Amino acid sequence: MGMIGGGTGSFIGDVHRKAASIDGMIQLVCGAFSSTPEKSIASGRDLGISESRCYANYQEMIVKEKKLPEEERMDFVAIVTPNHMHIPPAKLALENGFHVVCDKPVSLTLDEALELEKVIDKSGKLFALTHNYTGHPMVKQAKALVANGDLGNIRKIQAQYLQGWLSTSIEKEGQKQAAWRTDPTKSGIGGALGDIGTHAENLIEYITGLKIEEIAADLGVFGEGRTLDDDGNMLIRMNNGAKGTLSISQIALGEENNLAIKVYGDKGSLEWHQENPNELLTRWLKEPQKTYTPNGNGLYPEALEVSRIPAGHPEGYLEAFATIYKNFATHLNAIKNGNTVEKIDYPTVKDGIRGMKFIYAAVESDKNNASWVKI
Amino acid sequence: MGMIGGGTGSFIGDVHRKAASIDGMIQLVCGAFSSTPEKSIASGRDLGISESRCYANYQEMIVKEKKLPEEERMDFVAIVTPNHMHIPPAKLALENGFHVVCDKPVSLTLDEALELEKVIDKSGKLFALTHNYTGHPMVKQAKALVANGDLGNIRKIQAQYLQGWLSTSIEKEGQKQAAWRTDPTKSGIGGALGDIGTHAENLIEYITGLKIEEIAADLGVFGEGRTLDDDGNMLIRMNNGAKGTLSISQIALGEENNLAIKVYGDKGSLEWHQENPNELLTRWLKEPQKTYTPNGNGLYPEALEVSRIPAGHPEGYLEAFATIYKNFATHLNAIKNGNTVEKIDYPTVKDGIRGMKFIYAAVESDKNNASWVKI
Amino acid sequence: MGMIGGGTGSFIGDVHRKAASIDGMIQLVCGAFSSTPEKSIASGRDLGISESRCYANYQEMIVKEKKLPEEERMDFVAIVTPNHMHIPPAKLALENGFHVVCDKPVSLTLDEALELEKVIDKSGKLFALTHNYTGHPMVKQAKALVANGDLGNIRKIQAQYLQGWLSTSIEKEGQKQAAWRTDPTKSGIGGALGDIGTHAENLIEYITGLKIEEIAADLGVFGEGRTLDDDGNMLIRMNNGAKGTLSISQIALGEENNLAIKVYGDKGSLEWHQENPNELLTRWLKEPQKTYTPNGNGLYPEALEVSRIPAGHPEGYLEAFATIYKNFATHLNAIKNGNTVEKIDYPTVKDGIRGMKFIYAAVESDKNNASWVKI
Amino acid sequence: MGMIGGGTGSFIGDVHRKAASIDGMIQLVCGAFSSTPEKSIASGRDLGISESRCYANYQEMIVKEKKLPEEERMDFVAIVTPNHMHIPPAKLALENGFHVVCDKPVSLTLDEALELEKVIDKSGKLFALTHNYTGHPMVKQAKALVANGDLGNIRKIQAQYLQGWLSTSIEKEGQKQAAWRTDPTKSGIGGALGDIGTHAENLIEYITGLKIEEIAADLGVFGEGRTLDDDGNMLIRMNNGAKGTLSISQIALGEENNLAIKVYGDKGSLEWHQENPNELLTRWLKEPQKTYTPNGNGLYPEALEVSRIPAGHPEGYLEAFATIYKNFATHLNAIKNGNTVEKIDYPTVKDGIRGMKFIYAAVESDKNNASWVKI
Repeated sequence: MGMIGGGTGSFIGDVHRKAASIDGMIQLVCGAFSSTPEKSIASGRDLGISESRCYANYQEMIVKEKKLPEEERMDFVAIVTPNHMHIPPAKLALENGFHVVCDKPVSLTLDEALELEKVIDKSGKLFALTHNYTGHPMVKQAKALVANGDLGNIRKIQAQYLQGWLSTSIEKEGQKQAAWRTDPTKSGIGGALGDIGTHAENLIEYITGLKIEEIAADLGVFGEGRTLDDDGNMLIRMNNGAKGTLSISQIALGEENNLAIKVYGDKGSLEWHQENPNELLTRWLKEPQKTYTPNGNGLYPEALEVSRIPAGHPEGYLEAFATIYKNFATHLNAIKNGNTVEKIDYPTVKDGIRGMKFIYAAVESDKNNASWVKI
Repeated sequence: MGMIGGGTGSFIGDVHRKAASIDGMIQLVCGAFSSTPEKSIASGRDLGISESRCYANYQEMIVKEKKLPEEERMDFVAIVTPNHMHIPPAKLALENGFHVVCDKPVSLTLDEALELEKVIDKSGKLFALTHNYTGHPMVKQAKALVANGDLGNIRKIQAQYLQGWLSTSIEKEGQKQAAWRTDPTKSGIGGALGDIGTHAENLIEYITGLKIEEIAADLGVFGEGRTLDDDGNMLIRMNNGAKGTLSISQIALGEENNLAIKVYGDKGSLEWHQENPNELLTRWLKEPQKTYTPNGNGLYPEALEVSRIPAGHPEGYLEAFATIYKNFATHLNAIKNGNTVEKIDYPTVKDGIRGMKFIYAAVESDKNNASWVKI
Repeated sequence: MGMIGGGTGSFIGDVHRKAASIDGMIQLVCGAFSSTPEKSIASGRDLGISESRCYANYQEMIVKEKKLPEEERMDFVAIVTPNHMHIPPAKLALENGFHVVCDKPVSLTLDEALELEKVIDKSGKLFALTHNYTGHPMVKQAKALVANGDLGNIRKIQAQYLQGWLSTSIEKEGQKQAAWRTDPTKSGIGGALGDIGTHAENLIEYITGLKIEEIAADLGVFGEGRTLDDDGNMLIRMNNGAKGTLSISQIALGEENNLAIKVYGDKGSLEWHQENPNELLTRWLKEPQKTYTPNGNGLYPEALEVSRIPAGHPEGYLEAFATIYKNFATHLNAIKNGNTVEKIDYPTVKDGIRGMKFIYAAVESDKNNASWVKI
Repeated sequence: MGMIGGGTGSFIGDVHRKAASIDGMIQLVCGAFSSTPEKSIASGRDLGISESRCYANYQEMIVKEKKLPEEERMDFVAIVTPNHMHIPPAKLALENGFHVVCDKPVSLTLDEALELEKVIDKSGKLFALTHNYTGHPMVKQAKALVANGDLGNIRKIQAQYLQGWLSTSIEKEGQKQAAWRTDPTKSGIGGALGDIGTHAENLIEYITGLKIEEIAADLGVFGEGRTLDDDGNMLIRMNNGAKGTLSISQIALGEENNLAIKVYGDKGSLEWHQENPNELLTRWLKEPQKTYTPNGNGLYPEALEVSRIPAGHPEGYLEAFATIYKNFATHLNAIKNGNTVEKIDYPTVKDGIRGMKFIYAAVESDKNNASWVKI
């Protein structure tokens, strides 16, 4: 794989590299890590990449790698830049025959995302969007419980993604991560909506197999000097009649990365918390509460097959992220070997488009005093 | 005390009796426990009440007790009937010189509640509404943390009150508790809204010291054959600009009595769960998470003074309920002794009126597709 | 009931009174609350006891109450004095025809306990020892799970009772609770052993239905100036071949009242924590972990019948304590009415004797460098 | 790195590979993965190792790799075979100039471990023993809290390592992991003692900075047909006078990998659970309980520097394991570059020798009816 962005000091670039390496299926061979050739080379050196394959920019990387013999050149690019820099390299890579793994949200605007979908279709290449939280074994188990009808008809959903790290306006103090996330030219029309809201939206739809049909959003801008939302309180209605709430925040002081979901059906219900990802709580009409664990008792195959180590040995954020890469790499290897893949279990551009529609709907709703907007 | 309602088999009557007895300040001396004299006497016998003071109905009780010598007769009535039977006995008791403790919500309609307020004011008697959850030591600590500015300006609130016992339409199978709660002639215009929503609304305002200014409510009616809400998803806006969500349900399958609240300020935040009421989680800008416990380290006097037993000896639902009675009895004793009471810490008719306004606003909002309605 | 000890400011006296009152079956009618007549009257006044029945000492109380008409006089005495003052009033009460409820441990010495057993047998009166933790619904469920063979053969036990309130030598600063507990003339040969160790020992034998056969104890005396144990680490062997550990402490700094037990069988296992008493965790060979709650799904009748309020409404320390009183009062009422009682479920002098044997064995083992001693 | 053992299907081999890869500092270049050349090549192929460097056995690997140019050949070997096969390859590797990473326990016998120490000293090469649990950020924080005196003098320790996977004798059904662990010719004189007990022992000494001075062990052999311990209950005495319990088991039915430790000092105390490794609970004399999290507030540098990702993004078993590899690789790189390393923070042969002494002492104590044995 070749990486675009993710130079020394980058949070998400490092995460992608670690995640990609865990299962031993993917090797980082080149990169356009930074905005200048010097920085890119310096970053690459830290990563053990030969200088000749540390490129000055993504254009150069794509052009030069394409010229390498097939067995040498990168198979796919991993795009880990801020939101506004996802689409240009993604398109160029696809158009030049490279598969793409891209961080979320997929784009700055909905139009870009829809345009990208066409490029992907035309290219025939793979495109994975790293909605990493869907890689957890207990999320797979949750999805399987719903899909197998164990919970019955879904009636109610509570989802939240709460962080507190933007409680104060640290973007004014030069905090780089905060700076681009609060800048509409780099993040798009959604702040917390795009950065974390799309994860929650994706998780809801992934687990329930339902679609959010409409949304009423009351966004908040609490940090001094900000223009983008750093908080949001939303009502949701699902396409099967279920209702729920979705609360997101980056000013929920003290919260670290509190993504959580509860799903209530008419036969059973479930609860999952990202900060303690190795437990899935379930509740039942007649039976006591049951707690599932990775590689523990009573799991569906979908959960078992993504658990790497024995029960009680906690897997975390990186491992779930790695599962996205692993499933992508498995698909890619199958294609290389001329095989077809029956079940593709990683997020694609379709998830990206849903995410963009979610952001757009929430922003529009908020502008209209939290009136309902269809997604 | 004399009890109105609460005959053998009643849930809430038994709770009131136990709660009133814990601190040894209150004695049950008479009652109109049931709808027939025979049943009332039978219930009274089980409770060790002399037959002569088991009355056929509340009118008889009030009239006859009034004729007893002052030192013998009941001081106050405890009203534990279904919602529609709160106001008539409350008014009659007040008009005849008895203080009143009343279960919530205070009335069937908002007008009744406002009318009751006038009767109370005219009577000069005490009136307590049993929003029992505010009696917990950790709720007192939470309120004190906000009041003392430890959390800074409140920005975000998440509250929920989730039960699952009405997941199926058990009211059709003769479950008495379910029957009146799903019957608008006995419960009023709110189902879950009145039964549990008002508790959550009261808790939000009690802890934060703020008022819910407006609400957007998307109610659900999931149980077959029901007309009243058994689920609700709400956005709230507070009078200081804070925003939040409030989710209530009696069809959240498997949930037992999951009342919980999170309050986020710009200096700190807190989290409390009724099902584990002896912990108060707090989070801070620079310090690690701190957990307070009753009679544990670092408490404000307000929390210490309502903790009955040493740290680590859990108090529960009944003890918190008992604190409402204790504070009421303390006030009553002070009056008897000709003393004034500086701080009154139990819910009153004003909380009842807020509750009714909350129900009305939520129902109106829901009728208008969850548009904002002022409380 | 008449109380011996428990004057104003007493912790355990207040607990007994509250616990006895919760279920409305017992009324406090007299007491010898303190060491002087004045203090006793003052305490009685606070409790609403008529002055004529506030006695100068327990001897006077027993003599004078005996002379009252049967329907007026107390039925039983509750003894809530320090350990060294349990036996004399207990014997006098029994010999004069009163039933007895007594705080634990039953006596200062094992001989006293054995002697008491004879007095009880001769008197034909009831004797309850308040090992209160066995009153919890989830402890009843735990016992039922073992008794019904759900866990299979018990192989391993882990028990602990950890407190930290004696981490510093507060007995030197006049802390009354600490003073008598660290004084061998008032506590006997065991410090933490008697005060909390017997609770853990009792809980182990109650839940498992097994007996601790032998013990190897390494006691600690950490508080400056102390002579009695304030810490203990023990190995235990049960009469069925199961093995385990028992750790107790009153210098486990920061621990509040951390009594907990884990029991492992060859079919299932369980885990219970007193500080969160409304959950019982169970684990199984093939099924996921299940969590039971009071009045929740899947309970045995033994657990259901001691749950007072609906699931999710936490009961705590006082309610479990109250269950001991309730079961005792139920037995007493049956006797009064000439009925027999099939199942007696409250601790008796036999539990007291086991407790004394446990203390003696542990102390002897410790003196012999933690060698094994039979109980 | 070159791997010895760890062929396809191996649990611990896969763990070592994943752990070694996470931080991008180590590359697997060769291996003697299995007992036959064919299997070794097959395993290597799955791992992307060129056939020429998949060796038939460790002897061949060491000899042939040594002949490769320095920049090509492996730097160190990772030994992931059953216990009885640790020492021979370790010695051969060291004697041929290769550094070694070895799984625990270090050897079959104490003599072997002591002999190995001499070989290491003579070779001047690095030797790391993978006591992986010491790699957790919260374990580093725990150690730092003790080292900085925050807890004061340590008085009491409770440690446990509980698993349930050997509750039934699955070694009879051909479960490979169970087979060698219950076989004294492959495991040595300790069963659970060696497999998990040494982890607990190592964790106690790592966090407290103290030494276990003597031990009284009551081991259990519950699984039908076994000769080695599958359960153990132990008393421990530390070299500073602290006392404690250590409970281990592989027949604690339902437990997954419940390694936990509590340490009580005279100023503060701490509690850590491996199954929820991203929380460190601490308790204090005057302050409320504080909970530390990786990259959260209030951490010592030692904890911060091993946290890879932001607070709230859980790291797990593999990441802690990876920290051992990372610290080893950092040391190795420093040596390569001619630098010295100030602080070495990974377990070495000295930890291995402590572990063997612990096993020997526990077995001897058990043979003498749990009498005290010095370590």
